[in-house]
Amino acid sequence: MTDLTPADDAFADRLRTRLPDAAFRDLTPGYLEEPRGLFQGGEGLLVAPGTTDEVAEVVRACAEARVGIVPYGGGTGLVGGQIMEDGPRPVILSLERLTRVRGVYPAENVAIVEAGVILADLQAAALAEDRLFPLSLASEGSARVGGVLSTNAGGVNVLRYGNTRELCLGLEAVLPDGSIWHGLKRLRKDNTGYDLRGLMIGAEGTLGIITAATMRLFPRPARTGTALFAVESPAAALDLLALAGARIGQGISAFELMSGEGPRFLFETDCPARCPMDPIPEWSVLIDLGLGAGDDPDEALTGLFEAALEAGLVSDGVIAQSEAQRSALWQMREEIPEANRRIGSVSSHDISLPLSSIPDFLDRARQAVAKVGDFRINAFGHLGDGNLHYNIFPAAGVARAEVMDRRAEVAEAVYDLVAGMEGSFSAEHGVGRLKVGDLERYGDPAKLAAMRAIKTALDPKGIMNPGVMLRDR
Amino acid sequence: MTDLTPADDAFADRLRTRLPDAAFRDLTPGYLEEPRGLFQGGEGLLVAPGTTDEVAEVVRACAEARVGIVPYGGGTGLVGGQIMEDGPRPVILSLERLTRVRGVYPAENVAIVEAGVILADLQAAALAEDRLFPLSLASEGSARVGGVLSTNAGGVNVLRYGNTRELCLGLEAVLPDGSIWHGLKRLRKDNTGYDLRGLMIGAEGTLGIITAATMRLFPRPARTGTALFAVESPAAALDLLALAGARIGQGISAFELMSGEGPRFLFETDCPARCPMDPIPEWSVLIDLGLGAGDDPDEALTGLFEAALEAGLVSDGVIAQSEAQRSALWQMREEIPEANRRIGSVSSHDISLPLSSIPDFLDRARQAVAKVGDFRINAFGHLGDGNLHYNIFPAAGVARAEVMDRRAEVAEAVYDLVAGMEGSFSAEHGVGRLKVGDLERYGDPAKLAAMRAIKTALDPKGIMNPGVMLRDR
Repeated sequence: MTDLTPADDAFADRLRTRLPDAAFRDLTPGYLEEPRGLFQGGEGLLVAPGTTDEVAEVVRACAEARVGIVPYGGGTGLVGGQIMEDGPRPVILSLERLTRVRGVYPAENVAIVEAGVILADLQAAALAEDRLFPLSLASEGSARVGGVLSTNAGGVNVLRYGNTRELCLGLEAVLPDGSIWHGLKRLRKDNTGYDLRGLMIGAEGTLGIITAATMRLFPRPARTGTALFAVESPAAALDLLALAGARIGQGISAFELMSGEGPRFLFETDCPARCPMDPIPEWSVLIDLGLGAGDDPDEALTGLFEAALEAGLVSDGVIAQSEAQRSALWQMREEIPEANRRIGSVSSHDISLPLSSIPDFLDRARQAVAKVGDFRINAFGHLGDGNLHYNIFPAAGVARAEVMDRRAEVAEAVYDLVAGMEGSFSAEHGVGRLKVGDLERYGDPAKLAAMRAIKTALDPKGIMNPGVMLRDR
Repeated sequence: MTDLTPADDAFADRLRTRLPDAAFRDLTPGYLEEPRGLFQGGEGLLVAPGTTDEVAEVVRACAEARVGIVPYGGGTGLVGGQIMEDGPRPVILSLERLTRVRGVYPAENVAIVEAGVILADLQAAALAEDRLFPLSLASEGSARVGGVLSTNAGGVNVLRYGNTRELCLGLEAVLPDGSIWHGLKRLRKDNTGYDLRGLMIGAEGTLGIITAATMRLFPRPARTGTALFAVESPAAALDLLALAGARIGQGISAFELMSGEGPRFLFETDCPARCPMDPIPEWSVLIDLGLGAGDDPDEALTGLFEAALEAGLVSDGVIAQSEAQRSALWQMREEIPEANRRIGSVSSHDISLPLSSIPDFLDRARQAVAKVGDFRINAFGHLGDGNLHYNIFPAAGVARAEVMDRRAEVAEAVYDLVAGMEGSFSAEHGVGRLKVGDLERYGDPAKLAAMRAIKTALDPKGIMNPGVMLRDR
């Protein structure tokens, strides 16, 4: 980063000669904030190219002058990948004008969209052709396709449909030398060289800028069903997942675990959603089914509940009988992050573990955190994927400021345990600028060396999203 | 390649001091042949390490001495990736002793296996735990896990379960400097750095040697069904695929298109399998279903046939009523490559196309080939994936030798058409040494430049499978 040149007025003037005026926008404060407020400030020259060729022009200009580029999608990332707080003033390259849906091919279950398309708009474009684009996450109303690709976003439907990487068949991208890779093929199979697609996905903008993508669509499930089951324990939740898999197979679209703190936090913070069970169960599971026209989701969920009751896995259950009830159940799940935000976490962890280790992890993590101090833990997440959002809060009545000095200690306790149990310190949020040190600490040394070699090979000037994923050296 | 040092007797002697005797085996002729006889000969020092550490020791020795390494799995690859016909004598590094199943985790639907495990043995290990490992291809009795990973193999179940890359959660690999990457995590989500897993998969041994892998397993479908439907045309086959998708959803495990030449070739070459329909249909589709316990595959296939008949898509159909009938239908499909081999192709093409372009491609390709000369075409393959094996044979009664001089012209006609229709010249077989020129001709220049940069960064001495995928320079 120290070698980079600031995007100063002279650079901006030169860039203006190479791009239409519409590409230049005012840098409002929103571009320098992120959802959790962990990163803010810095500066930048905001550029919003309208075409792939314009993106390439920006990258070439930056490569020539050795100016850093911070790619900017919807600004919803949780690890600071979109905010460069210090270092020479970068170009902030926003995708906001690359919003064309280039084509929807329902017969092929494929859509080609530009990187600035908002996730919810891609979902709507699929729906308009009676297809499903299954990626679904809390920030889908703001997150852009380029961002979800660059972070390999997850969400609630990974269990059935895979992460973003599995949903992408091809990419168009501008590489760090300004060349354009035209890889937007609509092919399910194409073994003609290294998997540059997979490499660019999840690279968090450090290897180039994704400008468009060929995304997979799916037939819409004809019938859907949603239920909330109170389970005896996380181990019972895992057994319920296995039971559901044996009975319903690939029809399970989501399988979300919630601890009792989630619904209690909703109440405490005046979030509108409420748990329909009284008392609030210490552990519950939200299940979503998507079935064929000949199947009855209500029957499937009732049958599952009865079998689970007989096996001693569940103690209570609510099966949605209307779209309104279905929404209410999901609203409860979806408002938990907002409730967490209102309470204010000491430390938040997006972790994954081998599926069968999760009950043991929850026990051991609770003990490890208790050793550091008196905290409340809200554990919830995508149990079907082994992915927990493990968030730690001050004890009731304790102000956040009073315990924030324990943050590093808490985080270390959690991550050391995760690493010892062969888990991951970042399941779906990525590394960004927040977890660079964690990657160095917990990452495999041979993999890290390979990553550095790849980064240097593809971006020798180090202009692409400096400081993200790998430390500047 | 010109910079490489031969693995001469002095090198072999030095290597013997670093490895147990069991790692050294005689180089029998089988290691220097491949299924189609397009590549044969060369030479090599055969080494079969028994552990990952021994693999690393071999790689370090080769890196120090700058000796080339040809990784060798089951020897079933179809593009010459396992045969180096010329250049300085390499080490042939066989996976044949890395055959441990390190663990099967049925509750997690995961198995960890070493790279020398034969594909059929992995299928059996999964079956022993009542799980399915879905990768299935003609050479599964010989192909090894390291080979199917390195070529990102496809096969008949990709439609439902994905290519090999999608079936792999983690890798252990020896990188070209001899370091070991320990990446065997059993995680569905892990966004902690570049997708080195995806990059190594399909790299055909040019970026390192995969020594073990974490593979995904699936619940076994409770009920299966198989049918052969005679379809009016390839376009009708596509409509049938859409109809089946709408009616049966994710229960379709395979959807294979066959032209009439396939069954006719079986008869002509005295292969045992026979088409159960008389006359042999000009186009037919083999469908495999895997359904839940509550579903009836016979009913699903009968319903599909009736709906397709009403829509004018099919004219005849056979629904297997026993496991023996099911095997007989699949035997017909699986013997077609052997019949092709017995007849002897002028040119074979493993291509993929956007799904909706396939009928148009088949028309145009027939015309393009006819312009070159009088040939027979056997087109068959994985229609659900847009993947055709498009094989061209001498006209009936014409000896192969008489027309082999047209091979290049035929291939060019086919590949130019594929490229013009945004298809791929290698859907599932890879590039190997056979298609290096095709990759240069049809590959995207920016992607090729990125591939070369990655290869140079990770394997600066150029020792890993020299001449595969990228030309030595």
